[in-house]
Amino acid sequence: MARKLSRNTFIMDNPPTISSYAAIAGKMESQGPMGSYFDETEEDGYFGQKTWEKGESELQKRTLAKALEKGGLKAENIDYMFAGDLLNQCIGSTYGLRDFNIPLFGIYGACSTMSEGLALASLMTDSGIGGHIAAITSSHFCSAERQFRFPLSYGGVRTPTAQWTCTASGAVIVSPKSEAPFVRACTVGKIVDLGVTDANNMGAAMAPAAAYVIKTFLDDTSMEPSDFDAIITGDLGLVGSELLIELLRMEGVDISRQHKDCGLMMFDRDNQDVHAGGSGCGCSGSILCGYFLDKVKSGELNNILFCATGALMSTTASQQGESIPSISHAVFISHECRFKENQN
Amino acid sequence: MARKLSRNTFIMDNPPTISSYAAIAGKMESQGPMGSYFDETEEDGYFGQKTWEKGESELQKRTLAKALEKGGLKAENIDYMFAGDLLNQCIGSTYGLRDFNIPLFGIYGACSTMSEGLALASLMTDSGIGGHIAAITSSHFCSAERQFRFPLSYGGVRTPTAQWTCTASGAVIVSPKSEAPFVRACTVGKIVDLGVTDANNMGAAMAPAAAYVIKTFLDDTSMEPSDFDAIITGDLGLVGSELLIELLRMEGVDISRQHKDCGLMMFDRDNQDVHAGGSGCGCSGSILCGYFLDKVKSGELNNILFCATGALMSTTASQQGESIPSISHAVFISHECRFKENQN
Repeated sequence: MARKLSRNTFIMDNPPTISSYAAIAGKMESQGPMGSYFDETEEDGYFGQKTWEKGESELQKRTLAKALEKGGLKAENIDYMFAGDLLNQCIGSTYGLRDFNIPLFGIYGACSTMSEGLALASLMTDSGIGGHIAAITSSHFCSAERQFRFPLSYGGVRTPTAQWTCTASGAVIVSPKSEAPFVRACTVGKIVDLGVTDANNMGAAMAPAAAYVIKTFLDDTSMEPSDFDAIITGDLGLVGSELLIELLRMEGVDISRQHKDCGLMMFDRDNQDVHAGGSGCGCSGSILCGYFLDKVKSGELNNILFCATGALMSTTASQQGESIPSISHAVFISHECRFKENQN
Repeated sequence: MARKLSRNTFIMDNPPTISSYAAIAGKMESQGPMGSYFDETEEDGYFGQKTWEKGESELQKRTLAKALEKGGLKAENIDYMFAGDLLNQCIGSTYGLRDFNIPLFGIYGACSTMSEGLALASLMTDSGIGGHIAAITSSHFCSAERQFRFPLSYGGVRTPTAQWTCTASGAVIVSPKSEAPFVRACTVGKIVDLGVTDANNMGAAMAPAAAYVIKTFLDDTSMEPSDFDAIITGDLGLVGSELLIELLRMEGVDISRQHKDCGLMMFDRDNQDVHAGGSGCGCSGSILCGYFLDKVKSGELNNILFCATGALMSTTASQQGESIPSISHAVFISHECRFKENQN
């Protein structure tokens, strides 16, 4: 059973295992530095469907199916799942996952969704209330662009601080097993809103939420940045990453050596026209599941702190002059299962 | 710690208490049969704000504040909360709750949100990972109407099967206490989609999801409809309620004596022009928190099964010809705490 270290930081007494995971990404993502790490990549932006939204649902469906296949599991082996995405009313998830017949807790955390789903699945597993629990998320450049910004055919010019919503999906299956990678602790994030109103600079809006959750996690667990091989944010991009390092430095925490941002890892910014980097639920979801988890499983990386970051605004809120509230949840994933050993 | 009875039905070993709760509703709801049960009602559809969306956020903020006040609690006493609503990217919740500084798990279950949040808060509390946990939801006629249907000034004519989105909010605080009302068990719902495509007949779309979760709960717990004083659905309205009774009858389950639908309870359909009844996350949320929980607390009602029901489509999905996937989660709320006694 998970143990409360503080109001919102929990240590797993029997750290659950991420027993299977999968990542699928689109064409542009396949051409970036992460391209070779995904389980599959797809040239067709429609994923064989008639619309981009249906394509995103198909992407999410294929990703969960891949995670099941890699884990030797069938849909009926999954007790329930946590899923969400960026589309209005989370239709990427609801239409993508409806045919699996798996009980669902729908979640909404914008681009923090992979952290949120993984944290919830881990807390439930550690508490004994789930055999296998899945967590899935996705994003799609075309469906996001026309929902949040402009019709793609409009050809709007993007600002230098703008980020590129990734066409990608990640799925994890959390199980009560004893093999790496283990989920050992998590901190539930809170909404942080420092008043940034520029929807073309979401990295800056999200950096304070990431700083809060990283600082809280380190304080509550008495861990240091140097205890981690990587402290991973979701999609702060170039502007937000610099701001995060600076915000934490002001609090006496230096994560500059450990920090990795999935938004910066996804693309080759010199040769791919993505401005400040990648974004979207699927950005950190696919890089966690495609790149990091294999390295933690093998032991190449020992400890990582995964903090997907989400901007919680909508176009309606932005049009009404609102600032951008943001959130990030921290999940400590490890090759080791030390807390369990302490317990024995 | 919660015990698994099946893949997706859980019994609470130490049933948590809904230690405080509050409901606030709008003008039209105040004029219906439930009007006198709400903690507060508000004549101003804007709730003192400049837009309906900001009004909905203000409504949700006031409702959580009221639940805290009634429970003698401050925001810092709440470990974390589950919240969501119908607006794109759940801005009713994110903007409404950002100033409380309470860690947040954002959820999306459309009008099933109150069941989903209450189930998750109860599972976490029973597992010892939370002191006080809140669950909140809301809906607003004007913000929903212009997002999902037409600009209000257009004056679109509504079909007879259409329902009226309630301006209302409900908030619960779940705590590890030993006083009624207790949460004793829950069943996590799954997406059910029988192919209904008429977005003006969401009761019919949602009825199969409610039938699934009620049947599963009764089967898994070996309980009978007659064990309950009320089996409550969220907002099936007139059409969906009749369909639910019929669907369950075909499965050999007769809930006709116990069934109550919040969508039918909210308005006086003879004298209020709401067609097939009320709907919206806030419909079942406010009736649970305004009407039912007091009666379970006092013992006037002993056992209720609360099954808020959600339609998981979006306007984009409907425009693309998609059917309406739906979901409902069942939560067993009781004046008694029998399972704990069994355990001792």
